[in-house]
Amino acid sequence: MERGWNVECDVETFSLETGSELKFHCLQRALTDSSRARRQRNSVYLLVPVLSFSNTMGEKPLTDAERKRQISLRRLPIVEDVNSLKEAFNRHLHYSLVKDRNVATKRDYFASLAHTVKDHLVGKWIRSQQSYYEKDPKRVYYLSLEYYMGRALTNTMINLGIQGECDEAMYQVGLEMEELEEIEEDAGLGNGGLGRLAACFLDSLATLGYAAYGYGIRYEYGIFKQSIDGQGNQIELPDDWLKFGCPWEKARPEYMIPVQFYGRVESDISGKCHRWVDTSTVYAMPYDQPIPGYGNNTCNTMRLWAAKSPNGFDLSYFNDGDYIKAVLDRNVAENITRVLYPNDNFFEGKELRLKQQYLMVSATLTDIVRRYKAPKFGSKEAVRTSFDDFPDKVAIQLNDTHPSLAIPELMRVFLDDEKLDWDQAWDICIRTFSYTNHTVLPEALERWPVHMLEYILPRHLQIIYEINALFLKKVTAKWPEDMDRMRRMSLVEEGPEKRVNMSHLCIVGSHAINGVAAIHSELLKTTVFKDFYEFFPEKFQNKTNGVTPRRWLLLCNPGLSDLICEKIGEGWIKDLSQLRKLEKYVNDKNFKHAFMRSKHENKIRLADYIKKEYGIDINVNSIFDVQVKRIHEYKRQLMNCLHIILLYNRLKANPNMDFVPRTVMLGGKAAPGYYMAKTDH
Amino acid sequence: MERGWNVECDVETFSLETGSELKFHCLQRALTDSSRARRQRNSVYLLVPVLSFSNTMGEKPLTDAERKRQISLRRLPIVEDVNSLKEAFNRHLHYSLVKDRNVATKRDYFASLAHTVKDHLVGKWIRSQQSYYEKDPKRVYYLSLEYYMGRALTNTMINLGIQGECDEAMYQVGLEMEELEEIEEDAGLGNGGLGRLAACFLDSLATLGYAAYGYGIRYEYGIFKQSIDGQGNQIELPDDWLKFGCPWEKARPEYMIPVQFYGRVESDISGKCHRWVDTSTVYAMPYDQPIPGYGNNTCNTMRLWAAKSPNGFDLSYFNDGDYIKAVLDRNVAENITRVLYPNDNFFEGKELRLKQQYLMVSATLTDIVRRYKAPKFGSKEAVRTSFDDFPDKVAIQLNDTHPSLAIPELMRVFLDDEKLDWDQAWDICIRTFSYTNHTVLPEALERWPVHMLEYILPRHLQIIYEINALFLKKVTAKWPEDMDRMRRMSLVEEGPEKRVNMSHLCIVGSHAINGVAAIHSELLKTTVFKDFYEFFPEKFQNKTNGVTPRRWLLLCNPGLSDLICEKIGEGWIKDLSQLRKLEKYVNDKNFKHAFMRSKHENKIRLADYIKKEYGIDINVNSIFDVQVKRIHEYKRQLMNCLHIILLYNRLKANPNMDFVPRTVMLGGKAAPGYYMAKTDH
Repeated sequence: MERGWNVECDVETFSLETGSELKFHCLQRALTDSSRARRQRNSVYLLVPVLSFSNTMGEKPLTDAERKRQISLRRLPIVEDVNSLKEAFNRHLHYSLVKDRNVATKRDYFASLAHTVKDHLVGKWIRSQQSYYEKDPKRVYYLSLEYYMGRALTNTMINLGIQGECDEAMYQVGLEMEELEEIEEDAGLGNGGLGRLAACFLDSLATLGYAAYGYGIRYEYGIFKQSIDGQGNQIELPDDWLKFGCPWEKARPEYMIPVQFYGRVESDISGKCHRWVDTSTVYAMPYDQPIPGYGNNTCNTMRLWAAKSPNGFDLSYFNDGDYIKAVLDRNVAENITRVLYPNDNFFEGKELRLKQQYLMVSATLTDIVRRYKAPKFGSKEAVRTSFDDFPDKVAIQLNDTHPSLAIPELMRVFLDDEKLDWDQAWDICIRTFSYTNHTVLPEALERWPVHMLEYILPRHLQIIYEINALFLKKVTAKWPEDMDRMRRMSLVEEGPEKRVNMSHLCIVGSHAINGVAAIHSELLKTTVFKDFYEFFPEKFQNKTNGVTPRRWLLLCNPGLSDLICEKIGEGWIKDLSQLRKLEKYVNDKNFKHAFMRSKHENKIRLADYIKKEYGIDINVNSIFDVQVKRIHEYKRQLMNCLHIILLYNRLKANPNMDFVPRTVMLGGKAAPGYYMAKTDH
Repeated sequence: MERGWNVECDVETFSLETGSELKFHCLQRALTDSSRARRQRNSVYLLVPVLSFSNTMGEKPLTDAERKRQISLRRLPIVEDVNSLKEAFNRHLHYSLVKDRNVATKRDYFASLAHTVKDHLVGKWIRSQQSYYEKDPKRVYYLSLEYYMGRALTNTMINLGIQGECDEAMYQVGLEMEELEEIEEDAGLGNGGLGRLAACFLDSLATLGYAAYGYGIRYEYGIFKQSIDGQGNQIELPDDWLKFGCPWEKARPEYMIPVQFYGRVESDISGKCHRWVDTSTVYAMPYDQPIPGYGNNTCNTMRLWAAKSPNGFDLSYFNDGDYIKAVLDRNVAENITRVLYPNDNFFEGKELRLKQQYLMVSATLTDIVRRYKAPKFGSKEAVRTSFDDFPDKVAIQLNDTHPSLAIPELMRVFLDDEKLDWDQAWDICIRTFSYTNHTVLPEALERWPVHMLEYILPRHLQIIYEINALFLKKVTAKWPEDMDRMRRMSLVEEGPEKRVNMSHLCIVGSHAINGVAAIHSELLKTTVFKDFYEFFPEKFQNKTNGVTPRRWLLLCNPGLSDLICEKIGEGWIKDLSQLRKLEKYVNDKNFKHAFMRSKHENKIRLADYIKKEYGIDINVNSIFDVQVKRIHEYKRQLMNCLHIILLYNRLKANPNMDFVPRTVMLGGKAAPGYYMAKTDH
């Protein structure tokens, strides 16, 4: 391979002291656009440093014809299925969209196709839920404040095994599938890895056939859209992802659930019986989305809650004479689920965020308990009256501490509503909950001020205090003299402002705690949760984060996927460890060539896109060294920049050194309040 | 007929001085419930004075069997149609509602039926709109801030001629049609007669085959629901009519239209060319509903606008650092169409109301002008560049002065955007607009403060001033010395607060002005608009309000309708004057008996309902003397009460007098701010 390079920009002004003067080109959506690969990824945004080691002797790109010849015929579309898809597509355009082809827009065609695909899900969805009611398996509840789902169309077609037929049907009616796919809005209900983990887990749980449910919040505005102004600063634009409606969701107003806030606690003389009274009610309206498994008949449910003002909401408003104001003020309650907090690994202790967490947790637990009590299909009566089996029928996984109020809330339900005694309730809770920790960054750990909990959730604060008292008693029993340890392990942190440490609550209230990488799980045991590990060594585990190979390989890299399938079949799609079977081709020249070619084609597509959108030429024979993630000090984008400078200085010093050309691309969003990350200096 | 009576309550405490001590029973929804008759009526609420002259010798009511025997076989359902309806119903339950019969609720069944019925509309809807584009007839635009539509299901089935089939299909699947119909929410986007007139006109225009469009506002909350507290006071509850979604509407985000507010006017040196600049934009999102004609292939469109914050909305918000607040503040713009002002015949000069009016008018005129310019189907290019034909292709009817800003807005479009000269623009406007006056009550006439117009719509105020100046010049020419007349006729009223009289604007800017009853139209000419009548006698007309006989006889009184059809056929359904054919049966004993029986059955149903809901027995052989309408001084409910007392006193004085028993029922809502009308004293 030819090696050559030229430095297209001047980085000599880069100052090591401030890291402030390296200029970046700004690429929006670069990695996500203009290729099959781009289609299923979530919005990512690139900042490309103008440092491109371009090779003037680039390989000749493939012709269109050459590319086409590589199209895999893994599974030929079935003609009858294509015809019935075309028919359904027409029916939806006519009846659901109320359009004919003279006035239909591309978005109408996308919606017709999405409805057509969804029709194929419905039977599996209904029958999966029926079978869960009939077989009454243990149910897995994944609770997360974020689901970074991205687009659903192609993923759904793939999981249903109708992608080929849909492609063919659209082709036959003269529509370009890739164009239609581009129209779908991202469901960007997450900030980054935490939210995407949740989305990947839902896909895997369905593929593995678990009776699993994802519970979260239907933010009206997802992660903001990024725009860069003339000065290079980030501007946040609202992500109005529901503007055109979401074809996948189904509102379920008939299952609305009241959630309480504020109020006070009334106790009887014994001090044992408590009632949370004089509360304000907000309703949680469920919106369900189907989560189809890959290549099976399972279709699970993701249920997202939207806040809804009750019709009798604060009748006092309606009595103060200003009727119009009273109706407009209903928005205040409905603001709870209006917008995703755009912080990644940062705790911003806002009241509205606490309400988001509690609304989700409370509505979800109401659903879970109802389903536990009346598990038989079509029955509305409570079949189970004892909660003894609860941990055998219900597993609740907390995605970080964001849904940690589920622990005191389930205790409240057991104690105040179901009249269990404390010990039984607490035992059930521990056996039900598990907790995934995502970070050891101190500024990311949730520590809610006691005064805020007292005001918004007085009964829960009471329960947290009781949990803490009983827990500290046990700690004292084990380490009688170690007051400092007690202070470190307390759920309630003293200081100028008393706070509840939600991770401590999660550790105490769960039977399993995991980090998301081996090194991270080790750090938990040895640093931030060392005291807890010494007390509960059996609770600590590791579960390395993975991604679903459906979306992140099969879907986003069809060329490579085809190549792999040719060699080792399709088993890897459901069992990634089978990729080991490729090891025997490690010295197979043809395979290696094909592998490099598929990689190279993707690079050409990205380079074409960058050229088209930003007018920048990059060397397709260089290494594409890409870092796309939240702009954050701890992600160490600056370290990356220093590396670029190092390489550059080496080249300056020795222009003839043996050097692999490299194009470095950095991209990402910054939290709106993270000033340093938002500016270009 | 036996005559007898007993007074069941004591009205002797009624005080003529204050009218304050007559006690009322409160009946909610009495007239609208529990019978076929009730089904299609809008929400009405009854206050029944506890004054019932009940007959202890009531006629024996019909048995169920006797009633059934009267069922008319006017048109037998066609078996194949029934089967296909059942199939579509099942399909919608499965695919659109994602339910099976184990978990389906009554509301799901209603929604499935509504979707099934709507499917039957879609073909007519699309083809009607196609044919308007192909034939390019004159289009009639009805502009109204209110459409009191009520329920749509039964009306749609009747107009499509599939009521019998649907009834049969629901019967065959074991569902009760009347129960399903009860589930539909009222589209209560009106206060009373003005809004219902708009709704009836749409039905009639479609039935007559006109290329007509209803334009209005999609209020998120319609007319409030009434509740009566323990003290007898009215409590308003928000009418969250969209909570479960509306199966008839279709959002059309692809046709969103920007509407401007605020800003300032820039003029060139000549003072002739003006530009409205530095405005704030709000989008108007259209929601379309089908308006099927009765027994024909016409299906027209009612397009209602909802305010939508643009995504770039006030970028300054997004720069002030508080991203969350900026997103929540989008509600401020979207508040514009949040709620219907619940005033009937009362002008409340609120800024938000002015914005409602302008949003509707501006978005509507953009649509109208676009359709005029590009009238050919599927074409997006402007075919017409001259506006000479505008009044021959476009008629705009203003329902009261609420949409009167359409006049300066169309002038603004012609002058500033289309660059017509003033005289041509003004001539086109007058020939395009017509104005319906609804009231002579001074407190109901819209008179917007000049300072408010100046702030929100500066360019429109300028145009109104110019219209006024040119108009007053002509008045002076005709009555040179009459300064007082000038003052009376000016569009701009002087005083402590300068105001624009919108009715004067409408009279000057229209070619036809009508009252809604002969006496009302006469009063316009002789009192409130006397000066204008003397100046423009040719403009003044009368159009007596009517109601559609489909909803208000065929649908709501099926017994009587059947009887009429038996005698004179079905022609009256589209031509009410044919009811005259009944005159020849005026002495037909059998007919008269059947007529009285059908009346009597309705009375029994109402009595049953009142008994069931309120525990009050009323005499079904008494006259039902009902006054249900907005509680308002000018509606003279107190006069009615005085009449009750008069009758009562007569009876007390002469217990043996020859007297027809009478049950008086009064009901209605009061405007939330109308204190005297809301209390029970």
